[in-house]
Amino acid sequence: MSINEGLQGYSGRTRRLLEEVGAEIGDEVEVRAGERAYRGILMARYELADPDYVVIKLPNGYNIGIHISDVREVRKIASAKKPRFAPPPRPPSKPGLPKVMVMSTGGTIASRVDYRTGGVRAAMTAEDLLSIVPELSDIADLDAKILFSLFSENLTPSHWDEIAKEVDRLIRGGFEGVVITHGTDTMGYSAAALSFALQKPPIPIVFVGAQRSSDRPSSDAATNLIAAVKVAGHAPFAEVCVAMHAWHSDNVIAVHRGTRVRKLHTSSRDAFKSVNAEPIAYVMDGELKVNARNLNPRGSDDYSFKPGFSSKAALVKFYPGMPAEILEFLVESGYRGIILEGTGLGHVASSFIPRVRQLIEEGVFFGMTSQCIYGRANMRVYETGRDLLKAGVVSLDDMLPETAYVKLSWALAHAGDLEEVRELMLTQIAGEIGNRSMASG
Amino acid sequence: MSINEGLQGYSGRTRRLLEEVGAEIGDEVEVRAGERAYRGILMARYELADPDYVVIKLPNGYNIGIHISDVREVRKIASAKKPRFAPPPRPPSKPGLPKVMVMSTGGTIASRVDYRTGGVRAAMTAEDLLSIVPELSDIADLDAKILFSLFSENLTPSHWDEIAKEVDRLIRGGFEGVVITHGTDTMGYSAAALSFALQKPPIPIVFVGAQRSSDRPSSDAATNLIAAVKVAGHAPFAEVCVAMHAWHSDNVIAVHRGTRVRKLHTSSRDAFKSVNAEPIAYVMDGELKVNARNLNPRGSDDYSFKPGFSSKAALVKFYPGMPAEILEFLVESGYRGIILEGTGLGHVASSFIPRVRQLIEEGVFFGMTSQCIYGRANMRVYETGRDLLKAGVVSLDDMLPETAYVKLSWALAHAGDLEEVRELMLTQIAGEIGNRSMASG
Repeated sequence: MSINEGLQGYSGRTRRLLEEVGAEIGDEVEVRAGERAYRGILMARYELADPDYVVIKLPNGYNIGIHISDVREVRKIASAKKPRFAPPPRPPSKPGLPKVMVMSTGGTIASRVDYRTGGVRAAMTAEDLLSIVPELSDIADLDAKILFSLFSENLTPSHWDEIAKEVDRLIRGGFEGVVITHGTDTMGYSAAALSFALQKPPIPIVFVGAQRSSDRPSSDAATNLIAAVKVAGHAPFAEVCVAMHAWHSDNVIAVHRGTRVRKLHTSSRDAFKSVNAEPIAYVMDGELKVNARNLNPRGSDDYSFKPGFSSKAALVKFYPGMPAEILEFLVESGYRGIILEGTGLGHVASSFIPRVRQLIEEGVFFGMTSQCIYGRANMRVYETGRDLLKAGVVSLDDMLPETAYVKLSWALAHAGDLEEVRELMLTQIAGEIGNRSMASG
Repeated sequence: MSINEGLQGYSGRTRRLLEEVGAEIGDEVEVRAGERAYRGILMARYELADPDYVVIKLPNGYNIGIHISDVREVRKIASAKKPRFAPPPRPPSKPGLPKVMVMSTGGTIASRVDYRTGGVRAAMTAEDLLSIVPELSDIADLDAKILFSLFSENLTPSHWDEIAKEVDRLIRGGFEGVVITHGTDTMGYSAAALSFALQKPPIPIVFVGAQRSSDRPSSDAATNLIAAVKVAGHAPFAEVCVAMHAWHSDNVIAVHRGTRVRKLHTSSRDAFKSVNAEPIAYVMDGELKVNARNLNPRGSDDYSFKPGFSSKAALVKFYPGMPAEILEFLVESGYRGIILEGTGLGHVASSFIPRVRQLIEEGVFFGMTSQCIYGRANMRVYETGRDLLKAGVVSLDDMLPETAYVKLSWALAHAGDLEEVRELMLTQIAGEIGNRSMASG
């Protein structure tokens, strides 16, 4: 994400023409084409857009694109202006509100498209947040910081570790809740990671994202953020969780357990769902409704901080015709544990079984989950499952494949040997293993 | 699947004792333990069961397990009996009914557990079917054959080809509908495969499976099979489709398009769902209700048979921290096309992009789908997506990752070069690319 400047998205002869006249994105320009002259703000362009167009926003708010071959002249009228109105000053903190940190790791929610130019810019000081979403000042005594600004597909286990360590510092620093803004692509993985690294924390740790950026009328950024701050500052439970729209409307935000949540739609606002579980809470019309029992209470004395994730775990989704050699390749590359995402109740082709057995004998952990997503692995029903169990594969019940991968990355960093990895993987840590009665089909 | 015989599941000293007295599964035996004698049928055991128990079914229908250390003596009373009642003779065909083939490839629906011994046996002559589900004789003039008896996780692209070729023979042989019984684990993949190999067929081709075996009171085998035969024999449309329970109750069976269906629960009877689409039909209380327009009509003149699947396609699910080297490993192993199952709108880590670009330049096809399952890839929204498009990755819209993999396996067998693969992948063949208006989030 870059502040709008330069000639983002322009290339070739169009770029050269704009450079010649010293025009930059956000400048007011006049473009003469044929018999007409158009005056407006020079807009940023996507890299893949046709490079032969100059795009300006007219005073009526519409954008027009003018083909470079029609352009007779471009004149720069005025340099990019500062926004006409300065953001309002930060409202004074109200007494008695809980101290909540909003920490940004990147993603759509932490950015906004500059409505004037189409450029994307980060907006993540507490002042920014409060100017965009003034309601927040009634909910919490807010602080904000940027940990990093990454598209979430670029996060790795070492980033999970960094986030966990920063949250631990915030806990020790007296914050009463932490909100983590995060790209939605891999938010479920990161929420699972913090669930294992920060066990029974004393305060809520709430991930939040946006499916639609805040320049769009359909944006979910503000409503999700308000709900996340509400949960972080006021929930009676202290769980690692994800707060996102529960359905298409703005009035209900679901709060999902960090180990149970999955992004199940590419674009809809209610993309996040709890799998094989109910959301642990909802924020309905601004009111928090707890929806689960036996949650870790705020102020829990049992907090234990167990950072560290290994990069030697892998997740392998099986499909018909998959080459079993991929397992050996991973082990030869140094991987020490593999989560299989099998078919149905937890199966892979019989041809995998001798290889899996051999690798387990060499000390590699194999755990089984199901690509069905819903339901639970049950490897005692069919011969293939029983053979895999005999070979030493650990059935991970109804653990999500993604959560199982994250947990394995964590377990490999905390266990001394294969037996300990197995034990950790089968130990309930943060609600990742379901209650059998809930998921019966 | 094996007919019950021998000492399936018994091992160690328990097995030796049974062998000594010549007892086999299904035999009537008497076991003396302590002061008591138990008489009943010797039951098969799962391989993983505790090996130190002898299990018999008592005359009251209950099974008991007797620990080997308590067993004083085992006596064989009588050899395994034939079932007391022969199956009823096949009812005569009713005139005017459509000629339907039920072809078995394996799976739960094609097997039944012998209620006497717990062993699994195949039951797939037309006589067997009609004796189990006599209603079928009112729906179609039934024929049945076993193509193979495989757990569906063991199917590969070459099995898809075999099934396709056999169905083509049946079409040419004058059948008016084909039902394919199939293990549910990979039924979606096989249904997609036949959708590409048998384009605009003149008759319905209906996959059917069972989530619960027919010995269980909750079995869905009979109701699914009745609906599948109904669709095969009587549907006005001729599509490759999957007929399975629409919800927990027996009265509604959903008919899913072969390219749109996914197993979304490990065990529930309504595990199969159409993704980003509605079912094309339902069978409600025995009546067929068509639910989609523009279906390929029965008797279509446009049938084209295009068999052939390449084993050089791969499906790779991305996750945070995934090593990009896996792509090179696959290409070095001879793979010529890779479907990426990216995050969100179709993303992978930026570190993948230079490698992907390089491999595309070497002639490898890369297609992008989303692990969100619902919704569609849209790679023009974020920088990562745009960079991947620039590198030459083909965005596969709302195609299911599994369907995209199957289609790529098919396309690689039918295209001369990378450009042709791209063109085939983006050409609508069997409803695999959705109608944009349907899936808006």
